[in-house]
Amino acid sequence: MSSETPTDAETACFEAGIKFGSLYHQFAGTPVSPESAPSLATAMAESIENQPHCREVTVDVRADELEAALAESTADYTELTGRFLEVEIVVDYEGCTVVTRMEMEDGYPLMRLESVRE
Amino acid sequence: MSSETPTDAETACFEAGIKFGSLYHQFAGTPVSPESAPSLATAMAESIENQPHCREVTVDVRADELEAALAESTADYTELTGRFLEVEIVVDYEGCTVVTRMEMEDGYPLMRLESVRE
Amino acid sequence: MSSETPTDAETACFEAGIKFGSLYHQFAGTPVSPESAPSLATAMAESIENQPHCREVTVDVRADELEAALAESTADYTELTGRFLEVEIVVDYEGCTVVTRMEMEDGYPLMRLESVRE
Amino acid sequence: MSSETPTDAETACFEAGIKFGSLYHQFAGTPVSPESAPSLATAMAESIENQPHCREVTVDVRADELEAALAESTADYTELTGRFLEVEIVVDYEGCTVVTRMEMEDGYPLMRLESVRE
Repeated sequence: MSSETPTDAETACFEAGIKFGSLYHQFAGTPVSPESAPSLATAMAESIENQPHCREVTVDVRADELEAALAESTADYTELTGRFLEVEIVVDYEGCTVVTRMEMEDGYPLMRLESVRE
Repeated sequence: MSSETPTDAETACFEAGIKFGSLYHQFAGTPVSPESAPSLATAMAESIENQPHCREVTVDVRADELEAALAESTADYTELTGRFLEVEIVVDYEGCTVVTRMEMEDGYPLMRLESVRE
Repeated sequence: MSSETPTDAETACFEAGIKFGSLYHQFAGTPVSPESAPSLATAMAESIENQPHCREVTVDVRADELEAALAESTADYTELTGRFLEVEIVVDYEGCTVVTRMEMEDGYPLMRLESVRE
Repeated sequence: MSSETPTDAETACFEAGIKFGSLYHQFAGTPVSPESAPSLATAMAESIENQPHCREVTVDVRADELEAALAESTADYTELTGRFLEVEIVVDYEGCTVVTRMEMEDGYPLMRLESVRE
């Protein structure tokens, strides 16, 4: 029953989680419109890619969902939240590659591990 | 003494303050490097320009200050804070134009009203 | 028409706006439940009261609205947004007292100047 | 050489990372003073404990480091950053318990896995 010292794969997964939590809570609440969505997506990806062991971050701020939300509203912008995001983050740590994604599930942004490769 | 109902100029100044507080506290703490500074600056400006009555936001994430900070460190990125920012925000409200700036003073990011024109 | 140099009342309004934008964009997105709402409200008020010229911040994270939102969901927490907030901020600047409030209007958190007294 | 499907321990580590990234990037930049540090620490812990699989969060906003920083300054508050934080987060996921800590190392807030127990 288990050593307590984390494996490299476990550390890689921890690092991947840090990136996801960082990305989400740094940028949630940002004012966003279909016009400003592309620059926000680029900044989110490039800023999180600065973090250690982060190979690649892909962010799509979904214009279709933004337009649907704004169609129900009198405003021409809204606040960034999980509903408007599709994110993939790839972390490399000591030869382990972890792929993670964020998807909506039951109205909540679910962050999940997709694969762990040594 | 004095009427209590805000003037249009006072409301314009209030609106300008909201934009500054929003910009600073939404983005402070973002991981940033000289390479990712331009995309972050663009996203900051475009996101805050979505807010009501906001005519123009100009953001410079200062590469020179970033490089100076990183030269003292073992890391290749840092966290966004006022030291790395130069910001100008112009708000229009009911015919009043307010120009505001953020500058460092005594090590603190000082936000100030530059002009109020009716 | 009009001098360009801001009056004390205009600066007081600018300062009040900064506090509102800061409060909102620092804390929007925070995980919150009816149980954790009181500690979050206290921290929001006490942190913003640190800012210059800020006399008093009153924050209510509305448990009734939180419960209504959670009743529609499978989760037992949500993200802080304007729908769950009632905020009053009082700023004093050079003898001017500005009272500001945040209220929901048409589904948007509307920040407004309530009074400006010299 | 390695299955790609994450183990429960790996998922537990991913979840722990999410909590750390969330806590740090939600609250970094918050105005803080020795007086307001305790309420901020409580709110940080209680808000992150809302997240799934999070058993316990312990946050100390270090008054000694705050006082040292303010002694070099003309201000009576500063912005929350890793220098002022000691954090421990415990996550339970499908019978795995992960303990994580944040400590300063070379001037950077280092988040690390302390133990993974099945």
